[in-house]
Amino acid sequence: MHIAIDAMGGDGCVDLTVPASLQALLKFPELSLILIGNEEQIAPLLADTTAAVKERLSVLHTAEQISDEDKPGTVLRNARQSSMYLATELVKRGEVQAMVSAGNTGALLMIGRHLLKTITGIQKPAIVATIPGATRQGYLLDVGANPECGAQQLFEFAVMGSVLAESLNGTAASVGLLNIGAEHYKGTEEVRLASQQMKQCSALNYIGFIEANELFEGVADVAVCDGFVGNVTIKSSAGVANVVNKFLAEQLPGTSSDTVANDVLTRLAAQINPQRFNGASLLGLQGSIVKSHGNATVEGFTYAIQQAVREVENAVPQLIAKKVAAIIEAN
Amino acid sequence: MHIAIDAMGGDGCVDLTVPASLQALLKFPELSLILIGNEEQIAPLLADTTAAVKERLSVLHTAEQISDEDKPGTVLRNARQSSMYLATELVKRGEVQAMVSAGNTGALLMIGRHLLKTITGIQKPAIVATIPGATRQGYLLDVGANPECGAQQLFEFAVMGSVLAESLNGTAASVGLLNIGAEHYKGTEEVRLASQQMKQCSALNYIGFIEANELFEGVADVAVCDGFVGNVTIKSSAGVANVVNKFLAEQLPGTSSDTVANDVLTRLAAQINPQRFNGASLLGLQGSIVKSHGNATVEGFTYAIQQAVREVENAVPQLIAKKVAAIIEAN
Repeated sequence: MHIAIDAMGGDGCVDLTVPASLQALLKFPELSLILIGNEEQIAPLLADTTAAVKERLSVLHTAEQISDEDKPGTVLRNARQSSMYLATELVKRGEVQAMVSAGNTGALLMIGRHLLKTITGIQKPAIVATIPGATRQGYLLDVGANPECGAQQLFEFAVMGSVLAESLNGTAASVGLLNIGAEHYKGTEEVRLASQQMKQCSALNYIGFIEANELFEGVADVAVCDGFVGNVTIKSSAGVANVVNKFLAEQLPGTSSDTVANDVLTRLAAQINPQRFNGASLLGLQGSIVKSHGNATVEGFTYAIQQAVREVENAVPQLIAKKVAAIIEAN
Repeated sequence: MHIAIDAMGGDGCVDLTVPASLQALLKFPELSLILIGNEEQIAPLLADTTAAVKERLSVLHTAEQISDEDKPGTVLRNARQSSMYLATELVKRGEVQAMVSAGNTGALLMIGRHLLKTITGIQKPAIVATIPGATRQGYLLDVGANPECGAQQLFEFAVMGSVLAESLNGTAASVGLLNIGAEHYKGTEEVRLASQQMKQCSALNYIGFIEANELFEGVADVAVCDGFVGNVTIKSSAGVANVVNKFLAEQLPGTSSDTVANDVLTRLAAQINPQRFNGASLLGLQGSIVKSHGNATVEGFTYAIQQAVREVENAVPQLIAKKVAAIIEAN
């Protein structure tokens, strides 16, 4: 399994991506990685690596990189030698089966659509985030690619999310539409129209409107919304988790001998750790791209690589292309 | 100080509203309450009340009530004898200075606008929620009254929120506009236009776009967004807080002798307790209406009454009317 890493993306740049890549190589013995970025910055971080790991690691040098300030509209003209562009090109040419980046989201979407193209029947890709559920992982989309969505787009998200959840969880997936109330007249016209469309689609296990507090109760395997709402949802959830983690860190001096308390709180911190759910797939493209938060930790970026590994193992883009075409044609 | 309580609203109905009313009367010696609802159901719950509290409590009987299933569009025709309508009428007639309801939000907005009218310069009322901040309470609006908002409406929310925060916190208030990124080109056109309008308004201390995770870091005293986004924000935050609370309840058997752990966790549970932040004001009306969550606990509904007390003490609607008129005229 070959995956490309945009080594220059994210706030931590190579100090984030290189250590995380090494951890992922230790975790997945079948995995090979290509790091794309500034070799001068990458090389020192590989000094202590064992030969066995180095064998599955190569570096593709480029001095160019995309920053968070670059406007997405300009990257196709100005950034064709950037680490992000080159990594996506490797996916397009089939040299790797996926790529992972913590860089500029808008630029990544622009490059992804330009090089990989969308699956037939899908207007625009969506970003799908993993959320902790009561019994199994849930999926929320879109979380930022499309700030405004029509009913047809929301319907396409439901189809893609449903196929993703079924292939990764291995069970039938229920789909809910995020709204501000359960009553049929609530929300915007787009949401109400999308609900009717989902109801009429026999290939979907559509359960109706769900509210944001239900996301974490495992009410639905897949929750669908526009990218503005989804982005705010995951960021406000992470905000609350951060408040809790900060409180725990302040209250628990490292020297505490109170092991029961420490044990409970360590498990709590692990359960609500936003880094664990890092790694959002760009769904709807003819190829796998996984987006990491820009401010991810090494642990978080390792989870994003793991998300790419799972997608490749399950051939998610190919599966989506096949099923989406069938469902959308029938509707 | 006189406040009316819609005793029939909310999942708990009289079992929620009556005990909370009694707690509020104990907490605020200057407060008098009028409970509006079914006297047969209310009376038994007042049996054990002391004479000193009973003196400040009266009951206005009506058999009619609005349910969550009632469409807001029909209540003005069909529900003029409902507890919610009668409570709002008392505000209109000046017999009470505020009313509190845990009932149907859409119906409450419809009745509020019909009876109390909006302040000059404000198109539609917004629902404002209190959120825990790093140093002081923050305010988020709209959290559900207006699922779609134009730039002018977002601007009006900024003005109203700013006046509210300044009068309740007693200090100058900073205002942020909720968006999916900090860059000027991010988000929807409405959000970008509203940002320009806020920048040009010298009466606002506008700090630019903020992201949802920053809401809990006290980055801004007031955060502005449309009602769909705001509703999802508070519900997803409450969802995470519920996960944490459930985890703590499961992990901490009541018999634990581990007092350090229990102490830390009890304080954590209190800090992220969503009930503490119950009580959302309908801002922009010529009168005070406070909305409680339908599924609030007695503790939560008591906080909603407390929110109404604070609004009355600070003469919030009158203050907003005065300042909003001045600011909106100048812009």
